[in-house]
Amino acid sequence: MKGWLKIVGLGPGDENLVTPQVLDALSKASDVIGYYPYIARVAEYPSLRLHSSDNRAELDRAKHALQLALEGNKVVVVSSGDPGVFAMAAAIFEAIEKGPENWRKIEINVLPGITAMLAAAARVGAPLGHDFCTINLSDNLKPWEIIEKRLRLAAEADFAMAFYNPSSKSRPKGFEKALRILNAVCKETTPVIFARAVSSSQENINVVPLTQATPQMADMRTIVIVGSSQTRIIQRPDRSPFVYTPRFLSP
Amino acid sequence: MKGWLKIVGLGPGDENLVTPQVLDALSKASDVIGYYPYIARVAEYPSLRLHSSDNRAELDRAKHALQLALEGNKVVVVSSGDPGVFAMAAAIFEAIEKGPENWRKIEINVLPGITAMLAAAARVGAPLGHDFCTINLSDNLKPWEIIEKRLRLAAEADFAMAFYNPSSKSRPKGFEKALRILNAVCKETTPVIFARAVSSSQENINVVPLTQATPQMADMRTIVIVGSSQTRIIQRPDRSPFVYTPRFLSP
Repeated sequence: MKGWLKIVGLGPGDENLVTPQVLDALSKASDVIGYYPYIARVAEYPSLRLHSSDNRAELDRAKHALQLALEGNKVVVVSSGDPGVFAMAAAIFEAIEKGPENWRKIEINVLPGITAMLAAAARVGAPLGHDFCTINLSDNLKPWEIIEKRLRLAAEADFAMAFYNPSSKSRPKGFEKALRILNAVCKETTPVIFARAVSSSQENINVVPLTQATPQMADMRTIVIVGSSQTRIIQRPDRSPFVYTPRFLSP
Repeated sequence: MKGWLKIVGLGPGDENLVTPQVLDALSKASDVIGYYPYIARVAEYPSLRLHSSDNRAELDRAKHALQLALEGNKVVVVSSGDPGVFAMAAAIFEAIEKGPENWRKIEINVLPGITAMLAAAARVGAPLGHDFCTINLSDNLKPWEIIEKRLRLAAEADFAMAFYNPSSKSRPKGFEKALRILNAVCKETTPVIFARAVSSSQENINVVPLTQATPQMADMRTIVIVGSSQTRIIQRPDRSPFVYTPRFLSP
């Protein structure tokens, strides 16, 4: 079988955060498939076929990619960030599990990328420098009750938390509810980092204490990081403060 | 002030996973500081000063780096993986917080890298494709009781889990205790991934059901990923199986 499928992460936006491994895969591809803003980040050349599709079309996109690879094409599926973190890799494996037997014979590789929470954390210091959890706040694919339960248990475990998809036009109330839960269980001074469009030209970073965090501070391009009880702020002259979570936790 | 400090991640091992941003920082450095196996990964050139130090010397290394930057040098501190995930960034911010006021005036940037859990996950599929948590199993810097509490709460939240530093010669019993807790609360068939030296020439990946996981399967170069209750295995003819956690969770 001469076709193959590589599921790659383009990183958060800055071209200097794309790994050489991913650039190499793109240079060998016959077909690149993805959500249209990510396809827009791929360098075009004459023999390369680009297939853009809309958001929420993940499973159709996955099937299309698998079929193209089965037919002998060299297919790259692009996600932003890392393909394994709330992105295309899981959708493709779901399609394989439910699909025809011969899809299991395709040569498939996942190539990691810089996921948005790590780029966001780096911008402010090291808020994920101790144990943490990563939660998708969208209730499109799971019941809201599960999200609430995870938020409460994560706070009880004193994890720092990174939220993907905190808010969107179709889900205006979820993040407001999440903030209410966090305000009820976390310290008032807990640092909350809103990192929008990290590493792109539209980047905007905002650090506020939990009590001052509002639903309007997040949209679908924002990663939210909430500190643990140990997360600290370092003030600096004439610069934005650093935020970090110490490596140690005293008994 | 002409000196600066960049805290960078070299990724898990493969040179093709180092970002262009990090290579650029290294090319402009006068001094590179780090744990000696990571320094060994940095390309030497005549004017570059390399400063290797031993493991566990993080805080001394941090102070050394800050002092060199303050004196006008262009300093890069290297970690493997991502510098903000159980690596040097938090140690440097700790040193700044406790150190002299003029360390706060140094130009400091954190440059993200591919952290080991994402490289490990990519090798087997997408086990971190849904909500997950990331825990350092070393009790060098926190009481073991906290680790146990977090394991129990993470299992109750049904997070997939990624463990850094699962085991070492100085801590032979911790991972055994962690497996006992997981066996008491998680499904017997929960997939456990042992990913050693991911992306290096010594890479070894092993996927077993939880009941067959043993303490001897992990050492200090191993990342362990434990699936959630939803994590699935896809068998393939003549290839190792895929492991993935679906994006959705039905009520």
